[in-house]
Amino acid sequence: MRLKEPFYRRKLSQIQEELEHRNLDGLFVHHHLNIFYAIGFFHTTTERPICLFIPRSGGPLIFVPKLEEDYVREAGLVPEVEVYFEYPGVVHPIDFMMERLAARGYGRSRIGFEGSMSVNTRERIGRALPEATWVEAGDIIASLRLVKEPEEIALHRKASEYSDRMVEAGVAFVRERGRAGRFPSENEIAQYVTDWAINRMEEELEEVVVVSMLAGGLVYAGPRSAYPHGLPSQRRVQPGDNLILSLGCAVGAYFAECERTFFIGEPTAEQRRYYEVCREAQEAGTLALQPGTRCCDANRTCLGLIRERGMGEFIKHRQGHGIGITFHEPPWIEDGDTTVLRPGMVVSCEPGIYVPGHGGYRISDTVLVGEQGPERLTRFPRDLESVVIDI
Amino acid sequence: MRLKEPFYRRKLSQIQEELEHRNLDGLFVHHHLNIFYAIGFFHTTTERPICLFIPRSGGPLIFVPKLEEDYVREAGLVPEVEVYFEYPGVVHPIDFMMERLAARGYGRSRIGFEGSMSVNTRERIGRALPEATWVEAGDIIASLRLVKEPEEIALHRKASEYSDRMVEAGVAFVRERGRAGRFPSENEIAQYVTDWAINRMEEELEEVVVVSMLAGGLVYAGPRSAYPHGLPSQRRVQPGDNLILSLGCAVGAYFAECERTFFIGEPTAEQRRYYEVCREAQEAGTLALQPGTRCCDANRTCLGLIRERGMGEFIKHRQGHGIGITFHEPPWIEDGDTTVLRPGMVVSCEPGIYVPGHGGYRISDTVLVGEQGPERLTRFPRDLESVVIDI
Repeated sequence: MRLKEPFYRRKLSQIQEELEHRNLDGLFVHHHLNIFYAIGFFHTTTERPICLFIPRSGGPLIFVPKLEEDYVREAGLVPEVEVYFEYPGVVHPIDFMMERLAARGYGRSRIGFEGSMSVNTRERIGRALPEATWVEAGDIIASLRLVKEPEEIALHRKASEYSDRMVEAGVAFVRERGRAGRFPSENEIAQYVTDWAINRMEEELEEVVVVSMLAGGLVYAGPRSAYPHGLPSQRRVQPGDNLILSLGCAVGAYFAECERTFFIGEPTAEQRRYYEVCREAQEAGTLALQPGTRCCDANRTCLGLIRERGMGEFIKHRQGHGIGITFHEPPWIEDGDTTVLRPGMVVSCEPGIYVPGHGGYRISDTVLVGEQGPERLTRFPRDLESVVIDI
Repeated sequence: MRLKEPFYRRKLSQIQEELEHRNLDGLFVHHHLNIFYAIGFFHTTTERPICLFIPRSGGPLIFVPKLEEDYVREAGLVPEVEVYFEYPGVVHPIDFMMERLAARGYGRSRIGFEGSMSVNTRERIGRALPEATWVEAGDIIASLRLVKEPEEIALHRKASEYSDRMVEAGVAFVRERGRAGRFPSENEIAQYVTDWAINRMEEELEEVVVVSMLAGGLVYAGPRSAYPHGLPSQRRVQPGDNLILSLGCAVGAYFAECERTFFIGEPTAEQRRYYEVCREAQEAGTLALQPGTRCCDANRTCLGLIRERGMGEFIKHRQGHGIGITFHEPPWIEDGDTTVLRPGMVVSCEPGIYVPGHGGYRISDTVLVGEQGPERLTRFPRDLESVVIDI
């Protein structure tokens, strides 16, 4: 599954309209994800730069190393290709690109660039095309990426289904191994669900597109679950543990995540108490993701509930973040982001409670901001009974 | 396995000596791999910036989001930690960092930064600390990374052993499945060897350090092998195929790669002819990696052999690249890099021949430039008999 030509034709015309509006002669796109977003061409990034030039009118031009030439020509998404041999090159690839732009009459143009470009590259384009005017215009593609179109939402939905199924598969794996007398390690669980998802996607999907990754996850249990961003370890799950499965994947390069906190055996009163507050905050936070609401206000509602319950000291992060062709992207559901939520935005809702020495609690869904309100795209149940792994 | 405190003490003093020499009051390090190199603290990068400030004297200071606070304090590698809450924050994290530097008396200092920093961040630090003088100094850590110390080489050696074993494991897997009547797909091979390596490393190594990745590989067969940088596909290997296994891993975050081209069944005369030229070029290229030789000259010797044999049209890339805490880093064994090879450099030697519609040939070793000459750290045999997978 992936986006088709009509989507890219629309994006090209939207970008060109904006270039017209800003009186720019073209946009120089260096970021691989923005290139993918604009024309559907994806590649593994290395030191060899691949850049796209979108003129104010006409078809785009892509610059690639020889290594990628056949690949880009077969992909057939870009009308024009300019090929340099290698990195760093006797002529640096960026200098080569600027020479080619000059040869095409852009030597004295107004050209947009993205502020995510490195200082080194920015200086190089300035030196190589000294009479051009370079204008920061990273927001042109960024603002398009912020709101998803129906075709993109369909991919998020599919990725959400797989994310739910990854959580199910992880639970079944832990339960089965536990009953056989030997719980798996965090690493084993992460590896199992990742392989499981990749295999299912390859069997079931017509086309598998790997842009940054297909599937993966963070798994942490017991006292380690109190660290919100730890990597899976070799520690085996054990009875009494909290077990956080934080799993996600991408379909057609569009991501989703589903995270649940499980209990190995019947939870204690303390575990129930923390869990319920996390669940309530996630519920309130999800309901707050209404079109017209500011991100910072949704965040305040969500984390405010945890504070009201007297657990503010255990908060370590914001409510959530946007999801698209990356796991984390704008808008940020956080105090510092005043963006107004709009229909078509896809975000995570993932409040967490982290109690040092005891364990952590986090529940996350991938949520679509719909015309009528928020819609959870991930649907693994969140009630307490559904997250007890009986042993 | 990982580097220990004496290494990091030495690095700190080398960096501080250079700051002294350049009359800089400190170095602001934003790149996660340079932070890892300088102090051994590794983290998963997200939009939340983590930066390190190394003053001209005294201990370094690290800026982290609350999410990473416990983790960085437990790692115990940095004397001082400054914590911001979240991204993007009511006060942006970079502004917070600049405020803290100003509070420590660095408001009017000369501070080095790395040119790999984004234009957006560069502008932000300039605005936030307007009376400081910012000096591009990305070469301070880069030049240290260029030459490996004995402790680092020990890790490259271990990673090379695992890379050889990954290739062996891959061959055994293909042979076994093939004999059972069903060859695996490229994807299945890549997944198998990756899991194999991760499991072995977790069993065998005292400590497993995941900085960017543990193990992985590119696998391509048949006509697809003519694309040097394709991703593994669902196509099954079949008799008559070239099969390129391009496998590697990291031990203590230090990488190695071992790549071999195999034949499924007895190779044809055409396959043998191409293979032998690739093997000869790899041999000549490896021998050319002598201390005192310029990278561009080694590259010319290596690729020159392919051209002499009349196969220049099938060259798609340079001889190789440096290897360290990334798979690809300087020096570049390419026409545009005049760096003189020095003992302690670790590079790949991987000439390739790619014949459209027929298939590709590449052999790569991880090579240490030693005092006495080049030493291959990967040792899987390269003679023709050793790369035939009999069926």
